[in-house]
Amino acid sequence: MSVAQAIEALRRELGKNNVITATEDLFCYSYDATADLPEQTPDVVVTPENVDQVVKVVKIARQFRLPIYPRGSGTNLSGGTVPIKGGIVLSTLKMNRILEIDPSNLTATVQPGVIIQDLNNAVAPYGLIYPPDPGTVATATMGGSVAECSGGLRGLKYGVTRHYVMGLELVLADGEVIRYGGKTVKNVTGYDLVRLFTGSEGTLGIITEIIVRLIPAPQARETMLAGFSRLADAGNAVADIIGQKVIPATLEIMDRVTVETVENFAHVGLPTDVEAILLIEVDGIPEVVKSEAAAVRQVIAKNGGWVKTAENDEEREKLWSARRAALPALARRKPTTILEDATVPRSKITDMLLAVEDIGKRYNLVIGTFGHAGDGNLHPTILADARDEEEMERVRAAVEEIFRAALSLGGTLSGEHGIGIAKKQFLPWEMGNPGVQVLKKIKQALDPDNLLNPGKMVDLT
Amino acid sequence: MSVAQAIEALRRELGKNNVITATEDLFCYSYDATADLPEQTPDVVVTPENVDQVVKVVKIARQFRLPIYPRGSGTNLSGGTVPIKGGIVLSTLKMNRILEIDPSNLTATVQPGVIIQDLNNAVAPYGLIYPPDPGTVATATMGGSVAECSGGLRGLKYGVTRHYVMGLELVLADGEVIRYGGKTVKNVTGYDLVRLFTGSEGTLGIITEIIVRLIPAPQARETMLAGFSRLADAGNAVADIIGQKVIPATLEIMDRVTVETVENFAHVGLPTDVEAILLIEVDGIPEVVKSEAAAVRQVIAKNGGWVKTAENDEEREKLWSARRAALPALARRKPTTILEDATVPRSKITDMLLAVEDIGKRYNLVIGTFGHAGDGNLHPTILADARDEEEMERVRAAVEEIFRAALSLGGTLSGEHGIGIAKKQFLPWEMGNPGVQVLKKIKQALDPDNLLNPGKMVDLT
Repeated sequence: MSVAQAIEALRRELGKNNVITATEDLFCYSYDATADLPEQTPDVVVTPENVDQVVKVVKIARQFRLPIYPRGSGTNLSGGTVPIKGGIVLSTLKMNRILEIDPSNLTATVQPGVIIQDLNNAVAPYGLIYPPDPGTVATATMGGSVAECSGGLRGLKYGVTRHYVMGLELVLADGEVIRYGGKTVKNVTGYDLVRLFTGSEGTLGIITEIIVRLIPAPQARETMLAGFSRLADAGNAVADIIGQKVIPATLEIMDRVTVETVENFAHVGLPTDVEAILLIEVDGIPEVVKSEAAAVRQVIAKNGGWVKTAENDEEREKLWSARRAALPALARRKPTTILEDATVPRSKITDMLLAVEDIGKRYNLVIGTFGHAGDGNLHPTILADARDEEEMERVRAAVEEIFRAALSLGGTLSGEHGIGIAKKQFLPWEMGNPGVQVLKKIKQALDPDNLLNPGKMVDLT
Repeated sequence: MSVAQAIEALRRELGKNNVITATEDLFCYSYDATADLPEQTPDVVVTPENVDQVVKVVKIARQFRLPIYPRGSGTNLSGGTVPIKGGIVLSTLKMNRILEIDPSNLTATVQPGVIIQDLNNAVAPYGLIYPPDPGTVATATMGGSVAECSGGLRGLKYGVTRHYVMGLELVLADGEVIRYGGKTVKNVTGYDLVRLFTGSEGTLGIITEIIVRLIPAPQARETMLAGFSRLADAGNAVADIIGQKVIPATLEIMDRVTVETVENFAHVGLPTDVEAILLIEVDGIPEVVKSEAAAVRQVIAKNGGWVKTAENDEEREKLWSARRAALPALARRKPTTILEDATVPRSKITDMLLAVEDIGKRYNLVIGTFGHAGDGNLHPTILADARDEEEMERVRAAVEEIFRAALSLGGTLSGEHGIGIAKKQFLPWEMGNPGVQVLKKIKQALDPDNLLNPGKMVDLT
């Protein structure tokens, strides 16, 4: 049985328009947004239009023993969509319909290829929002976002993707279609498989439909920029804000390297004479916003910082576009951008910031750190050149030290980017070998032939 | 190898004080709070004092091939703690220490035997609360509550147990001790095993430590009692309140049967000339409370109801004690109380209320319905007499119809009581046989010898 026969079968079942084989097209599916990883061209890319076609792909893949890699927009940051063992990339981009918006139950039902921002645009007229807000909302898909359990800028107050997925339809490795959960706020029928599949990185099943929870849009918000002449002061201000029981919708940090780079790139008027800035947004009804903003200003002053409040939507947008420019701006400085997401309890933010600064110095690397300080989720971003193998050795050593630092502070390997290929080898550091064995047992139980996204998160060997 | 030898080994490893074998003591562990289920006395009850002793129990259980049933306070409502195959009941009641309250990270770390209310009392001085609020907070343990993923009165606004568990330490069926999660708000390292074990009803691992998220206590609240002369009006008011984007902390319903029974039992001054009452509490900062309470009053008037507001803490407490009296009051009317928790999307509350009323009439049964209307989680409570087999046949048929009604409305078999023994046979109705197979595969993968709480949720056959 050959790959050519499999492609023939796929064409027969899905139609020619849904089977991509041209070399120049396949190349586009050989990588995702993760740096310093192996690339691999798939044998074929399919674009099924409905769940029945997904089932057909799985059956053909089984028959010809070809792996399947589910893929949304490929914005993945841990190599989760790279087809490292060849085979079939299953793109969900043609399953991109919003099937229902149900304002009375505060839910939306979507296909996996829907872009996150498109969902938010569609629910806005109902006065609702879908809160999970990864940096790539404008391109990332709901399916990819659920498979990776995306986090983003609003995790602190609103939680992450797993807090919003209420129901899933999936195609399993044996071709069965199953549905778990639904529109009920409470559901304890069976194990919590909605959450097990959320964040399973396409290794246990292929998501074909998603029911998510929506929430009423906040009535008001206030956005503040705070500057600090010492990095530790910014970190301490973060902890103190939470200590005041103020939970901002967004509480972001950018260190000096990041601020300078963004300002050079985007010219948005960020201060360049600081060691760190915080971007803080509080939201809710106007009275709450007013009192929380006052509390935030007080904390910042106490920690030696200054505050500037966005006076209108334009100023507000400018601040957020500066924040969103952090990664692209950093990425322009050197050819290779290694973006990490080691995460610590928020009381340890200052320790982690200082540890990263120290690691950068010791390995003689440029590290810009920004991220979701409010939930302890930092993005130390190492700027390097993949062609310089000596430098890359230092990068890899520094990354390992960043992981060790996060874990020693009670943190985790990954706050929101997932394990994929990039962090697989480090899993035992966090959960020990017995903990990793549990992951393997679950993968083995649900996908014994290692058909679904093989080589990601855990190896079956 | 005999049970006597196992008991000898348990005494040697745990000390005599932690091994219970007297017949009259064992009897107390032969049932839980669920009606109409088989009872079974265990061979032995152990009360380990720490995780090392739990590991020893698991190893002895393996050696002598005895099942283990983890048990908190036994308030379980689906038979989850009944030792149906004999063996070892593992009581967590001696592992009852609050290990840490960490206000800077808004977390608490507890042993499984801590009573939920005791945790709330301990965090209150910090201005924090642990929101999951099952009816049995004063007796139920944190371990049992996590194992069952308890819901309760505040699910609508604050979510359920799975939304608050951040980290777990567990002993697996092979005796390994594992830890997943921690104090970070974000964590996508590996599959979401924290959520898989939460709600797994003691069938996959024995919980020995729990890290939970706390939230700031609301500054103010307002509690209202609303009366309706038609059941459907009460149901519609519930949907309309949510439709106004008001998310009350609590939104409870009690039908006429329940209200009359509670009033006869507790004499708290509830109106007995109504078909249903709603108990509504809004909370937050004072301005929010004021505007939300006004919106609630408007919706109730529009739906033909009247409202009375609790003027002080004493009146408020009276209303909540009336609500909490619902189950004990109903339970006094007849010897056997069959408490269901079929749950529907909240827009279907009226349909479900009317369906239950109709089922009661057709089967000539007294059904009092109360519950968490705001999250679609009703508790139709059938009052019967287990000695009357003819009546019990009608009860069982009515229960099945209640399940079918909930599922046909897009609901679920269980909102918060779990599957246990009571609903195991109905799982395929909700998730199909392929869906149930996934549960079995996971159980088989993590507990191949069916050692942990066998016969609950899924059978391994």
